[in-house]
Amino acid sequence: MRPVSDSQTLADAGEFGVIARLVERLPTTDSVLVGPGDDAAQVRIGGGGVLVATDVLVDGRHFRRDWATAYDVGRRAAAQSLSDLNAMGGGTAAIVVGMTAPADLAVEWALECSSGLADECDLVGAAVVGGDLTRSDVLTLSVTAVGSVEGEPVRRGGASPGDVVALRGRQGWAAAGLAVLQRGFRSPRVVVEAYRRPEVPYGAGAEARAAGATAMIDVSDGLLADAGHLAESGGVALDLRRDAFEVDEPLHAVGAALGVDPLSFVLGGGDDHSLLACFPSGDAVPQGWRVVGEVAEGSGVTVDGEEYEGETGWRHF
Amino acid sequence: MRPVSDSQTLADAGEFGVIARLVERLPTTDSVLVGPGDDAAQVRIGGGGVLVATDVLVDGRHFRRDWATAYDVGRRAAAQSLSDLNAMGGGTAAIVVGMTAPADLAVEWALECSSGLADECDLVGAAVVGGDLTRSDVLTLSVTAVGSVEGEPVRRGGASPGDVVALRGRQGWAAAGLAVLQRGFRSPRVVVEAYRRPEVPYGAGAEARAAGATAMIDVSDGLLADAGHLAESGGVALDLRRDAFEVDEPLHAVGAALGVDPLSFVLGGGDDHSLLACFPSGDAVPQGWRVVGEVAEGSGVTVDGEEYEGETGWRHF
Repeated sequence: MRPVSDSQTLADAGEFGVIARLVERLPTTDSVLVGPGDDAAQVRIGGGGVLVATDVLVDGRHFRRDWATAYDVGRRAAAQSLSDLNAMGGGTAAIVVGMTAPADLAVEWALECSSGLADECDLVGAAVVGGDLTRSDVLTLSVTAVGSVEGEPVRRGGASPGDVVALRGRQGWAAAGLAVLQRGFRSPRVVVEAYRRPEVPYGAGAEARAAGATAMIDVSDGLLADAGHLAESGGVALDLRRDAFEVDEPLHAVGAALGVDPLSFVLGGGDDHSLLACFPSGDAVPQGWRVVGEVAEGSGVTVDGEEYEGETGWRHF
Repeated sequence: MRPVSDSQTLADAGEFGVIARLVERLPTTDSVLVGPGDDAAQVRIGGGGVLVATDVLVDGRHFRRDWATAYDVGRRAAAQSLSDLNAMGGGTAAIVVGMTAPADLAVEWALECSSGLADECDLVGAAVVGGDLTRSDVLTLSVTAVGSVEGEPVRRGGASPGDVVALRGRQGWAAAGLAVLQRGFRSPRVVVEAYRRPEVPYGAGAEARAAGATAMIDVSDGLLADAGHLAESGGVALDLRRDAFEVDEPLHAVGAALGVDPLSFVLGGGDDHSLLACFPSGDAVPQGWRVVGEVAEGSGVTVDGEEYEGETGWRHF
C-alpha cells in the first residue's frame, strides 16, 4: 500500500489507506480483546466479551432507491452488520441504527426500512433497541451490531500453511444482480433479488468456530479481496482452485448475456455476505462448506497458482 | 403529538413523530432489558447487561467545519454518545465510529477528527475499537458507545411527585456560543469553546445512580425539552425555579450583547451534555449538583408554576 500523506484527499488516498492511518493512532485499553481490523471488535464488558461492529450504507453508493425497496434496503443494512458478527463465529443480540434522511423522504420509506431491519434481525433472534434519526441531504443508514461468541472469536489472521480454505453460502449472485441492474435490466430475477436482499449463512460462523476454523472473514469487499485480507493478516498465501467453485446456472445466464466470464462474479462479488474460512484439514470442514483452496507459505492470493487476471473486488456504482 | 401518516414527508412529520412510529413496530426479545426511548438501551449479552447508544452528527446541521476544527468535531461526536451512557448511570468501555465523507476531504481532517474521538474516549477510559469509512457528499459521524452500569440503570421515567430535580454540569454555555457564532462573532471565547467542545460531567451519572436518583437524562435537546421527556416518561409534572439556576457571567455578557434574556440559553440550550436528574429528597442530592425544581402530580414542565414563554429547545442552524 502506498503511504498516505495528510494533505491528500480521501479520493487520492483511498479508504483503506486512510483507515490504516486512523487505526495507527487509536490508543487501546485493557478491556479491548480484539481491536480494529477484524470483522468485529471484542470488548470485555461486565466480565464477558462483547462483539461490536458497525457499517454505513450510503444512498447512491451502496444502494439505489430505484433499484430496491425501502424494506430491502433495511434488510441489507442489517445483514451487513449481522454478517460481521457471524464471521467472528458469534451471534448478534441487538442492533442500533443511525439514519440520516432528506427532509422530503416519505415517512413510509422510513417505516418500511425499519420493518426490513427488524425482519432481518428476527432471523438471528436479535432486536432493534435504539437509534437516531436526523435530517441530511444524503440518505444513510449506519447499523451497529452487538453480540457475543462462545469461547474465542475466529480472527482473520489465524491461518497456517497446510490449512484448507472453504466457502459457505451463495457467492457471486449479488454481483451478477448488480451487473444486470447497472445495464438497465431487471432479470434474471433470482440474481436481482439476491442483490437486493442477501441470504446470509447465519449460524455457519459459529459452526465453523466449533469445528476449529483457524481464520474467517465475511465476503463483503469481493472474494479475492477478502481472501487477500486473510492472507495478509495471517502472513500466508492462499491458492484457490478455479474448478472448485460452483458457478451456478443463473450466473452462466448473466455471463452469457453480458459477455463476461461468470466466474468473475464469484471471484469478484462481495454482496452475498458468504463466509470464507480456513480449517486445519479437509476433515474438519463442516457440511455445507465447499473446499475451494489451500493455505501455503508466502503472501497474496492466487487462482490455480497464478494471479487472477479478470475483474475483482468491490465494484459498486 | 399529532398523528403521523405514512405519506407525510420527514419534514412534515418531524423526527420525534417518525421515531415514535418506528419504535411501535420494533419487536423485542428476552435479551432486551431497556429498549428504545431512553438515553441508551440495555441488552443482556453473555450474562451481563450491556448499555448501547448511537448518535449521528451531520455536517452543516450539528457542526460546521468553519466553526470548529476536525479535532473538536471528533471530541464532540464522541462526547454525545459517551454522555448517553453517563445519563444511565453507567460508563463506556468502547466506541465504534461510522464516517461518511466527501471525496475531497483532506486526510488530515479525518486523522484529526480521529484524535479528537480518541482523546474524548480517554477521559472515561474507553477505546475506539472499530469503524467504517465510506464516501458520501455529506460528511457525517455516527458514534456508537457500548458499556455497562453497576446494578440497575437510571431510566427516564422513574420520577415521583415529591422528588427534587437537580442539574449537574455547565448549562447554557454551548447555546450562548452557538448564538455568538451564528451572528458572525468569535467571542466571548469561553462560550465559543464550550460550544466547540462540551465539558461533559462524566462520572456524575454513576454518582447520581449510587445516590438513589429516580430518573435521569442528559440535556441534549434543550433543558426544558429534556425536562419534558422526564415528565412525559414518568407521568409527572416538573416545576423548575427560575432563581435556582446560576446564570454564569459569560451568559450575561452574551445576553446583553445580543439583546436576549441569558436565562434562555440555560433553559433552551442542549449542547453542554449536562445531566438532569430526580432524587427522592434534597438530602439525597450529591455534592456538585444544584437543585433546580421539584416533581409534582400532573404533566408537563413549568417555570415558577407557569409555562415558560421564552425560547426553548434545540435550535441548530
